[in-house]
Formats: sequence, structure tokens, C-alpha cells
Amino acid sequence: MRNLVVLLTDFGLKDHYVGVMKGVILSIAPQACIIDLSHEISPQNIMEGAYVLGVSYRYFPRGSIFVGVVDPGVGTSRRGICVEAGGYFFVGPDNGLFTLIYQKNSSYRVFSLQEGRFFRSKVSNTFHGRDIFAPVAAHLVRTRQPEEFGPEVRDPVMLPWLWPKHTDKGIRGRIIYVDRFGNLITNICEKDLKGRRIKGVLFKDHLLPFCKTYAEQHKGAPVCLIGSDGYLEIAISQGSALERWGREGEVYVLWA
Amino acid sequence: MRNLVVLLTDFGLKDHYVGVMKGVILSIAPQACIIDLSHEISPQNIMEGAYVLGVSYRYFPRGSIFVGVVDPGVGTSRRGICVEAGGYFFVGPDNGLFTLIYQKNSSYRVFSLQEGRFFRSKVSNTFHGRDIFAPVAAHLVRTRQPEEFGPEVRDPVMLPWLWPKHTDKGIRGRIIYVDRFGNLITNICEKDLKGRRIKGVLFKDHLLPFCKTYAEQHKGAPVCLIGSDGYLEIAISQGSALERWGREGEVYVLWA
Amino acid sequence: MRNLVVLLTDFGLKDHYVGVMKGVILSIAPQACIIDLSHEISPQNIMEGAYVLGVSYRYFPRGSIFVGVVDPGVGTSRRGICVEAGGYFFVGPDNGLFTLIYQKNSSYRVFSLQEGRFFRSKVSNTFHGRDIFAPVAAHLVRTRQPEEFGPEVRDPVMLPWLWPKHTDKGIRGRIIYVDRFGNLITNICEKDLKGRRIKGVLFKDHLLPFCKTYAEQHKGAPVCLIGSDGYLEIAISQGSALERWGREGEVYVLWA
Repeated sequence: MRNLVVLLTDFGLKDHYVGVMKGVILSIAPQACIIDLSHEISPQNIMEGAYVLGVSYRYFPRGSIFVGVVDPGVGTSRRGICVEAGGYFFVGPDNGLFTLIYQKNSSYRVFSLQEGRFFRSKVSNTFHGRDIFAPVAAHLVRTRQPEEFGPEVRDPVMLPWLWPKHTDKGIRGRIIYVDRFGNLITNICEKDLKGRRIKGVLFKDHLLPFCKTYAEQHKGAPVCLIGSDGYLEIAISQGSALERWGREGEVYVLWA
Repeated sequence: MRNLVVLLTDFGLKDHYVGVMKGVILSIAPQACIIDLSHEISPQNIMEGAYVLGVSYRYFPRGSIFVGVVDPGVGTSRRGICVEAGGYFFVGPDNGLFTLIYQKNSSYRVFSLQEGRFFRSKVSNTFHGRDIFAPVAAHLVRTRQPEEFGPEVRDPVMLPWLWPKHTDKGIRGRIIYVDRFGNLITNICEKDLKGRRIKGVLFKDHLLPFCKTYAEQHKGAPVCLIGSDGYLEIAISQGSALERWGREGEVYVLWA
Repeated sequence: MRNLVVLLTDFGLKDHYVGVMKGVILSIAPQACIIDLSHEISPQNIMEGAYVLGVSYRYFPRGSIFVGVVDPGVGTSRRGICVEAGGYFFVGPDNGLFTLIYQKNSSYRVFSLQEGRFFRSKVSNTFHGRDIFAPVAAHLVRTRQPEEFGPEVRDPVMLPWLWPKHTDKGIRGRIIYVDRFGNLITNICEKDLKGRRIKGVLFKDHLLPFCKTYAEQHKGAPVCLIGSDGYLEIAISQGSALERWGREGEVYVLWA
């Protein structure tokens, strides 16, 4: 078995911060195999990070260890945690970054990172990715024992607004991710629409058509479809929905 | 032997698509060692992808498996293929992306990806990189048997305009890649010029000098030379040829 | 032990140059594990590269081999070198890129890369990263014998202006790195300020306050503090010091 450690941060790739985290991990667990999921999460955008983690982790082999660092509260009293869910591990700040992991797994365990002996000997106020989360992940590679890091906690931070709301007329959601093509990806997933006939998608006072593929609409026309991650997205055929509408706004799927 | 899988896409690194492909590969072939060649090919620019693959693959150890995903026809009836050439393997869409591989190898075999048992169980319309090409590459790591994926095909798509044209007076080519410095790289390679005395390079109604190094010309002067990939490039000494001339245009090397 | 090779360049990730270096390394040393430190050093900015290497290398396991390619003099007579310091190895051009390595290690050995049998058989004028430094690093993975590459040299190029200057009133330094948030990082490190009470930091005719954290100042206010790399940085609370002041300028820490 490969000892996969998968990294997600908002650090970007210009600076050495991601590289340094890898050095710390490999210093403790030389057998680790490190993979980058993304380092271009918008700065401090927990929702984006939660989405990317939530739709990606199942593609990795069971036992993979994810380190997520989107951490506006670094240096404050926010907890660090280690989550075990569905055979996967997640290490990072307790700020909602793992909300979709909790949502998608009926059972999970969360441990507070309190045992300082697993951290770097000097912990900075600004870079817990390097000083706490990377070394904790590396120890996890060696032991697979998340309970060693501290007591189990029952109240991890969740972002419940990441869930869509079911109504009589349909389902209400919001945009939680924008991909590089400017497609607006919502928190409404394929399963939410199962067995329903759809009249259309209300967005910015328009009723947009629900389609199977982009190609069903002519260039420049809006289209709503289930994207490759299994979530409803709002797109412009061969264009950018981000440019037309920005990244905010409520989305309302109406039943036929 | 390391089991190298080398990735080339136009996905960029912002989103999780490349990371997810790596997860799929490692789930099937944990022994794979994955290397990024580039993920910044201009969106849907097959020619750029063909160039980068064509000039790079020989620097990797024989037996390396390349996955190339520049795939404007994803979801249409275009074939997926696996190519074996010179001891290397290439997996991706049959759209000309492997043209330079065919050109540089006197013999090669091409197999159509038809055996669905090697794909992910649910294949999306939009992301064959994850659902078909990544799992096929992972199986290749294990078996090295490209003939398992489907029947051999004799007519893979080629982009013959990627070849330069020899005339009595010289050799005509075109720009096929622009590097980050704005150098315009043509499809004319060192071998095409072997043993010839060169009068100059006709480009945009200018006769540009053919030089050994950038330093032969003063700052701001145009210069043509053989770049580190072995192809003729048009550059501005300490400047950007892209800014001056754009990325289109015929290039005509004239014999002295 | 993992055979770590850590890469730092100014090549960016658009082109295939970094990928090709990895191919060359793995062709010679299949057991190498390659990690990216950064490839977004500003083009030809030796000082930036020196900073990133200097503050990062100790986070990697001893025995790691760093390849640094920020090389404006490629193709001229500047030497290539291999440095051994503190149990780490560094391979690259002799242009000052390793200045902080020399500064931080009381003893080190430097070898001139003269034995062409370790290079690629054809060495280009423009890409020594691929043709000299990558293969030398790969051989180092196999042998750990830097003295094989050529004679020891006593006069490696240093950039002494990378050191700050102590005066009676304080310590004078300069900006040597700008991170992605626009924080201006100086060459004055934590150790330089040890045991001193600080009146403030003179910069661009302002006396800026020396703080422990960004949060001590309101949004938009300037703040000087020791960053996570252990160096004094000039920042704007929740803003960009780069935008306000640019990347040039002397910094003078005044004792109280």
C-alpha cells in the first residue's frame, strides 16, 4: 500500500510554503507519497476548500490522508482536528473545511489535536500547516491512530448553509465553487434531483433550461446541467457564467 | 524500474481535476510514480499539446506512460487510443495529439480503447481524463499490454500541417508553440536544416537573421535560432516576439 | 531513506522544462523522489531564489539534494557547482544562488562541475538545468560523492549585500523577497534582533511599529514583524505592502 498524503491549501505555488510542508512530512514519514489536490483555493475561502475536498476524496484509495489548510483563524483559539470517515483521514483546522465529509458519511470520528509532542518543537502563530498539520499527517502515515492526537470531540464546526433546502416547489441552493472556465457550481447534487421532472432553474430572475450537455444550447446561451463532479452547475455555452453573473446568488430548481 | 505515468493536460492547476486523475491512477496502480509534464496547455489547443509531448517524451525513461488530455471532442464519437512507440506508451483522445510521436517513430502501434471493463464503472460525458484515460494508464502500469484495450487501428488522426514543407528555395513552416518568454517556436527542426547554408528566415515580410545565440543581436533585435528543444524559434533579444508579432504566421527558411 | 531531489527554478509551470528535468533525473536515478520547492521565482532573480532556498532547506530531511536553476549567465563561462553543507547537497550555477547556505553553515565544501561524463552527451547553451544540473543531481542520488564532479573551489560567488549591516543605532537591511500577499520580506532575521528592545523600523521615511502579530494593528495600518520563516517583514494589515511601496528600499531597525 502506498502511503498517500494529499494536500489542499490556499497557499498558491509561487512561495515555498507547500514545498516546506512536504519537507516536514518526508522528514517524519519518508515512506509518504505526496499528491497535490489544489493549492489555488481562493485565499481563506473555506467553502471552496470544502467543496473541492468533498467531491475529490473518494477518487483516492482508501486510507489516504488529506491535509487541508484554508485557515483564516490561524493563531486564534480555533481547534486543529483529525477526522476519520469512510476509511479516509483528514487533518486541518476545525472551521467547517470538512463539512462535506461529515455530510457524505453517516459515521465519522473527530479528534482534537492537543498532543503537542506530535507538532514541530516550535509552533508559529501563522503557519500551522507546517508546524502542526504536516507533522500530524506524517505521524498518521506511520501509525493510523488518530486517537493518539487528543480527545474525541462531538461538535466539529459545520457550515450548514452548504446544504441545499428542499421546498414543495423544488430545491433552493447556492453557488459554492467557480471553476477555471467560469462555470458556477452549486451545492445541489445529482441525488437531490433524482426521480424529479425539472421545469427549470431560477437564477437572477431568469428561468434557465436544465440540459444534459453544453452542446444542447447555442453559443452564448445559459445552460444548467450536472457537471462531472455530480453537482448542478450554471454555465454559458462556450462562455463564462462568472463574467455574466458574478459568483454570488441564490439558485432555485423548480419541479415541473 | 519505476512505473512512471506522465501527465499532460489543458486543465490548469486551480481546480481538482488533475489531482483527481492522480487519485484514480493510484487507486488502480499504487506502484505508479506520477509526474506532471504540463497542465497549462492553452485550452483545447491540440497543436501545443502535440508539440510539448513530441519534444519531451524522449527525456523520460523507456517504458514511461504518457496520458495526454487536450480533448475538445470529449463526449462526441471521437476514439480514445493507446499508442506504443519506441518503447513508450501514450494514452488519450485520437485527435492528432500524438502526431509528433508518429512522425518521430518509424514504427508504432495504435489500439482503440473499447474494452469498457478497464474504464471507471460510470463514464461521464465531460471528463474522460478521469473516467477512461487515467484508469487505462493505470492498467498499463500493471500489464504493459496495450492490445488488451481493443483492436489495433491503422488510421489514427494526424495533423499533417504539423510537418514543414520542403521547396527548392528552402523550407516553409509555421508557429506551433509559444513559450512563457514569448518566443515563437516553429515546426522546423534542426535536422531539417542540416548541411544547409541559410540566407535568413522570412517572417511577416522581414528577413530575419539566423544565429547561434540570443547574444549575437542587440537588445530588441529579432533573432532566429535553434532552441533547446531542437526547433527553430523566432525571438526578440531580451524581449517578446509574441508581443511584437502575435502567434500566427508563416515562416520560410531560405537557403543561401 | 528516500532519495529526495528538490527543485527550485524560475521556469514557471506553463512549459515542459521542469517536467523534462524530472525525466532526465528519473532516467539516471529511478529511485529518486522529486519534490517541487518553487518554479515561480521571478525570472533571473538570484536574490529571490537564494532566499527561498536559504529559508526552506532545513525543513527537508538531511541528505536531500537541491537543484537550483536561476541562471541568467547560462551559456557564458560561469561555473556550475555542487555544494555540500550541513548534510545537504546543492547543485546549480555559481552565481550567488547559494549565498544563504554559506552564511548559515560554518563549514561547507564546493566542487566545480567539470567532469563532462556526468552531463548529458550533448550540452545546450541555454538549458543547463536539463543537460548538466539534473544529471549531476541524479548521479549524486546514486553516489553521494560530490568530489567526483570536479576540483574543490574556495571562492564560490557570494552576494554579500544579502547580509544586513549592524550599526550603533540598529541594523540596516533590505527587501529580498516579496510573497504572494505582497508582504516585503527583509534580510534581517530573528537572531539579529535577539535581546534588543526595538524603537521601530525606518522605511520610506516612516517609523513603522514592530509587532508580534498582524492583528495588533487595524486594517490598512503598516506593521513590521517576524514572519514564519524567521525574517523581519513589512506588511499592511489585511493589505499589500507591495502595492503601497513597491519592492525596493532600505530598512533600518532602530534600537530603543
